[in-house]
Amino acid sequence: MQDVLFVTYHIRSTAQEIAARAEGVALEQSVELPRPAVRDPHIVENILGRVETIELLDDDLYEVVIRLARTTTGDDPAQWLNMLFGNTSLQSDVLLVDVTMPDAMLPAFAGPQVGSAGLRALVDGYDRPLTCTALKPQGLPSAQLAAFCKTFALAGIDFIKDDHGLADQAYSPFAERAALCQAAVAEANAETGRHVRYVPNLLGGPRAMAEQARICRDLGVAVVMIEPMLVGLPVMHELVADGLGMAVMAHPAFAGALRIAPELLYGKIFRLFGADAVIYPNYGGRFSYSQQTCADLAANLRRPWGPIKDALPVPAGGMQVDRVQEMIDFYGDDTILLIGGSLYMAGDALFERSRTFTENVQKGGDR
Amino acid sequence: MQDVLFVTYHIRSTAQEIAARAEGVALEQSVELPRPAVRDPHIVENILGRVETIELLDDDLYEVVIRLARTTTGDDPAQWLNMLFGNTSLQSDVLLVDVTMPDAMLPAFAGPQVGSAGLRALVDGYDRPLTCTALKPQGLPSAQLAAFCKTFALAGIDFIKDDHGLADQAYSPFAERAALCQAAVAEANAETGRHVRYVPNLLGGPRAMAEQARICRDLGVAVVMIEPMLVGLPVMHELVADGLGMAVMAHPAFAGALRIAPELLYGKIFRLFGADAVIYPNYGGRFSYSQQTCADLAANLRRPWGPIKDALPVPAGGMQVDRVQEMIDFYGDDTILLIGGSLYMAGDALFERSRTFTENVQKGGDR
Repeated sequence: MQDVLFVTYHIRSTAQEIAARAEGVALEQSVELPRPAVRDPHIVENILGRVETIELLDDDLYEVVIRLARTTTGDDPAQWLNMLFGNTSLQSDVLLVDVTMPDAMLPAFAGPQVGSAGLRALVDGYDRPLTCTALKPQGLPSAQLAAFCKTFALAGIDFIKDDHGLADQAYSPFAERAALCQAAVAEANAETGRHVRYVPNLLGGPRAMAEQARICRDLGVAVVMIEPMLVGLPVMHELVADGLGMAVMAHPAFAGALRIAPELLYGKIFRLFGADAVIYPNYGGRFSYSQQTCADLAANLRRPWGPIKDALPVPAGGMQVDRVQEMIDFYGDDTILLIGGSLYMAGDALFERSRTFTENVQKGGDR
Repeated sequence: MQDVLFVTYHIRSTAQEIAARAEGVALEQSVELPRPAVRDPHIVENILGRVETIELLDDDLYEVVIRLARTTTGDDPAQWLNMLFGNTSLQSDVLLVDVTMPDAMLPAFAGPQVGSAGLRALVDGYDRPLTCTALKPQGLPSAQLAAFCKTFALAGIDFIKDDHGLADQAYSPFAERAALCQAAVAEANAETGRHVRYVPNLLGGPRAMAEQARICRDLGVAVVMIEPMLVGLPVMHELVADGLGMAVMAHPAFAGALRIAPELLYGKIFRLFGADAVIYPNYGGRFSYSQQTCADLAANLRRPWGPIKDALPVPAGGMQVDRVQEMIDFYGDDTILLIGGSLYMAGDALFERSRTFTENVQKGGDR
């Protein structure tokens, strides 16, 4: 079975209709023709998607596994996505849930460049969760964002990322902001001896992103953020495959309700496409994933997977400093805890609250 | 009001909670901070999103208009998308419905390169709907696809596009397929005196797509297909903005249930990002948009919009030859009718059924 993929979908249907509906998805995701129009025996044998199993999950919900030929993906990550869910993503009764493929296919994907071990080495942080915050709000001048950056760095937060809305706006142009923030972190590190990392947000068309990456490399930046659903998953993949040379933290902006299970999208696809760390909406925050979804997603990021390095989960979205212990209990140490807005609520006590955050994580990790 | 955007969302909420929920979206889509953490008066005045209106639509559904500062978009198309729906796309109670912006901002977008007039000129087709079909199934060798291409071209179908699943697979590598199909169309055109156009599918990372575009230009291709949700909307935009020099037919693959109203996504966003023609699931086909949605979407593609050229709707998805008259009655002449699978059902009578398709369109357009 070196040359087939097994793709799992959840389909809402009646018992009467599920067999035909499953067959419809298999056709849609392979030949895009009505079955009677597929006459060539080579196509029927080697290209046509096949329904492998249909299992009743619930009232009107079925789990359907469809077998696709690896050759249809051309071993290209963009076309692989297309085969998994191109047209079927438009059909509201179908959820893309999972995919398994032969290990021999994994080298078609870049995967994380440095993985969890590399991220830990970059910030010299071991045997504890790592920490992260965001520079905000947009609208502040670069110097003010850099001042926040220094405060967070002095407090020992490992990764200080641009807010996902920081792009190349007039009030904090990318090149200026990146230079000032990187310098602010370097100053703080010189004072503390820590290895805090500033994480700029690469955003725009591919050319703009390539130029931003060049600026970052010149500044000695070690980790960048990318919003793959906004800029294009294949864009992130190509940057990594072409030797970006900086670790990638992926952000879920624009991921919407793509009807792809979060465990798959964030847990496997983002990882395959080159993310070393994956930000996603934590349970109980401003967004709406379940605890089980979050646990499965994190497990997918961390599990051994052929030559593909692991990646760290970054649960986020309205997290509070006082939930740190709960999050460590739930996620364990191989996690990056991201707290943004709730630090800023401290106003003039920004440093103190940031310090409490890092100390709580240190304590939690020491248990 | 030169410097603000008005973004319309539909939000599911109770009467008690809608004001807070609307305010939450305004914060999420601008400063990403709790309101009390936003103290800087400049930010409050100039950056903070504001709830403009809240209107009850239905039981628990509200239409909310939020004002965003243009400066937050940096006049960059990718960041503009981010501002409209970056994080809020992750919140299942919110649908992005519409946006209005000052005309002065429109030049930030490439828009269609040739528009409807340019597409008509390319195929020398006037005063009637244009016609389109797809080369399929994948798995066939390039020569067989090129033979189909010639048959369709002889039958006078204006645009013969790659199926959206045709990428750079071993059985029909992009460069070989494009060359053979382009040659087949040229042969047919030499016989008939028509101006049928082959439309290859550009797919992959940005580098692969740039190389495919170069191959197409060298072959004299005039129209290409792009799947912007799969490869990245900003990638399509950059290709067009950088002078692609070939008209673009956009395909909806991977657009999923992004919780963006189809009228907006296909009718405005695809157009702004450079599509001259936009393929979308027609009502009554394999997918599930309403007639009203399809009519509004088509109207959005065609309406005058400052310097942004118009684009042609391409209703598709399981269309049949016998529905041609109905589609012409519904959509009128400024439309490209795309019929794929139902032509292939004719088997050995592929030419005859294709001919019936183009004749029906000619008759319908002649009424």
